[in-house]
Amino acid sequence: MKSRRWVLARRPGGALSEDDFALQTVEVSPPADGEALAVARWMSFEPAMRGWLDDDPDRFGRTDGVPSAGYGVQVAVGEVMKGPVAIEVVESRRADLSPGDVVRGMFGWQETMTIGPDAAFARLDPSTPLPLALGVLGGNGLTAYFGMLRVGGIQPKSTVVVSGAAGIVGSVAGQIARIHGCRVIGVAGGAEKCSWLLDECRFDEVIDYKSEDVAKRMRELCGDAIDVFFDNVGGEVLEAAIANMAVHGRIVLCGLVSGYDTTAKQPGPRNLFHLIARRVSMEGFLLSDFLNEAADASQALREWEATGEIAHREDVQEGFEKAPQTFLRLFSGQNRGKQLLRI
Amino acid sequence: MKSRRWVLARRPGGALSEDDFALQTVEVSPPADGEALAVARWMSFEPAMRGWLDDDPDRFGRTDGVPSAGYGVQVAVGEVMKGPVAIEVVESRRADLSPGDVVRGMFGWQETMTIGPDAAFARLDPSTPLPLALGVLGGNGLTAYFGMLRVGGIQPKSTVVVSGAAGIVGSVAGQIARIHGCRVIGVAGGAEKCSWLLDECRFDEVIDYKSEDVAKRMRELCGDAIDVFFDNVGGEVLEAAIANMAVHGRIVLCGLVSGYDTTAKQPGPRNLFHLIARRVSMEGFLLSDFLNEAADASQALREWEATGEIAHREDVQEGFEKAPQTFLRLFSGQNRGKQLLRI
Repeated sequence: MKSRRWVLARRPGGALSEDDFALQTVEVSPPADGEALAVARWMSFEPAMRGWLDDDPDRFGRTDGVPSAGYGVQVAVGEVMKGPVAIEVVESRRADLSPGDVVRGMFGWQETMTIGPDAAFARLDPSTPLPLALGVLGGNGLTAYFGMLRVGGIQPKSTVVVSGAAGIVGSVAGQIARIHGCRVIGVAGGAEKCSWLLDECRFDEVIDYKSEDVAKRMRELCGDAIDVFFDNVGGEVLEAAIANMAVHGRIVLCGLVSGYDTTAKQPGPRNLFHLIARRVSMEGFLLSDFLNEAADASQALREWEATGEIAHREDVQEGFEKAPQTFLRLFSGQNRGKQLLRI
Repeated sequence: MKSRRWVLARRPGGALSEDDFALQTVEVSPPADGEALAVARWMSFEPAMRGWLDDDPDRFGRTDGVPSAGYGVQVAVGEVMKGPVAIEVVESRRADLSPGDVVRGMFGWQETMTIGPDAAFARLDPSTPLPLALGVLGGNGLTAYFGMLRVGGIQPKSTVVVSGAAGIVGSVAGQIARIHGCRVIGVAGGAEKCSWLLDECRFDEVIDYKSEDVAKRMRELCGDAIDVFFDNVGGEVLEAAIANMAVHGRIVLCGLVSGYDTTAKQPGPRNLFHLIARRVSMEGFLLSDFLNEAADASQALREWEATGEIAHREDVQEGFEKAPQTFLRLFSGQNRGKQLLRI
């Protein structure tokens, strides 16, 4: 059987380009004993996947001595692009999978794939629409949940700032803070995203980094009073937040997307001294450390989603051939919510 | 009575110069009722005092809305230079002070001073030599203690890296880690300091940033295995440490001396993504948050000092007129241990 797949054609020389990927057609064998054959249904895109394309350990988080470091999935040139996909089993010679089963795993950018005996995957609840299972009710929602509640440790009336606020993680994180009685300020790019945050997500304030001076506006809105900064962006926004942290405030490092789509190393914030003077902590986290608590968190997210407490939107592109350009939407800011590709 | 004092003559234009200070002679009045008159005995110098001379809130930690931010003692041009001093009362019209009493406070760079009714000061134990009371057994030792044990949370067998390791805070911090069964690596400048750390402070390893490639050497000595990094320096050393943190490691931000003696803003570390991938926390602290536990800590420091568990040395300069040049020793790396000036 023929299948198409996207491989990494070369390492990006700077900002990612569609030409960094190449579409190939390959032959897929029928499943052997202990294997299953599946087709991609929905591909999910995350900004951090950009780092996997680079050759710099500082940019994809590989640690030679620590295989568990979490993002250690560098993609080799010529290799199928890695990424999370919801797939449907079409033929099975595994006892635990039947045709029609839908599972999620890091199966990469391929139309048809073999699920080998050692493949890691998670079953998806058939009652949950796949676009939600891959976003607000999946890893993104859980990341927002644990980042805000466990790492951020928000309290009622905390002043909470979220960067990358219109993204799926940021928007859910901010709404979780709102649900817990916090004052929530979002930083996002463009009037449309900012309106969505105010109107649908019910943030208290927004800062449009494309049209406003973020440092000045953040000072006006939350001067020296940010209790929790949930950062998906890094760069200038992080620096502006550091300048406005409250004493004993907390910075939750979830992502650093402003530095992802380049080969240049982005300078870190120039005002770290505030972390000392104000006794601020800055802590990175990964969802993988909280999976043993995921059931309760998933239940909470489901309820908030079902009752309309958490607004969300999915940016659905169509067609396997559009995988690279769909991925690129995350770095141009074109995406409106969770970036997905329907196959 | 005539008294000399050092005032800030101008804001430093970059690296600090003796010409940034001016020596003045002023008349000091006899103490009024409720006041005392005292003379300076020992002046103590801290790198963080450099930030007080700048006009940039990012560099001395002032927060407009948060007076408690801890370093908010910017010195105005024309004002007496602020700084901790051990002083001896020579005449008193306060019931709580008698001639001969020795107290410590932020009395600044003046030979003779009035202790007003509202002055803040701490009595010093007459049995403790003043150079120790101002350093290893004073705020520096306590800073090392709480930073390493409470913020760093070291455990037996932790791999601990200390920058600015030959300074009074760094050397005590590293030795506290050694006493608690950690493997301790110090980063310091020059062969003499490195030898002192190995021979007297019994660090396990040292890195001489003046003659070695810190990033390379740190990778060799502790690649991906730093449990606690106690940072007094910032800059390239911080970046090198971040690249070698263990999963769930902790960075204790105590000082950022590499960025103090300049008006340029020092770029922060370019590899913050490691904090996410390895779930590392970076936390600033000030001694002021731990003062309610200082008695036990002081007792521990006294015992370690008395039994020779903690080596220390004091760099004693002589003469009030040398205050600026003594302060400058901290930024040229000339100081050998706790920087003091005997009056």
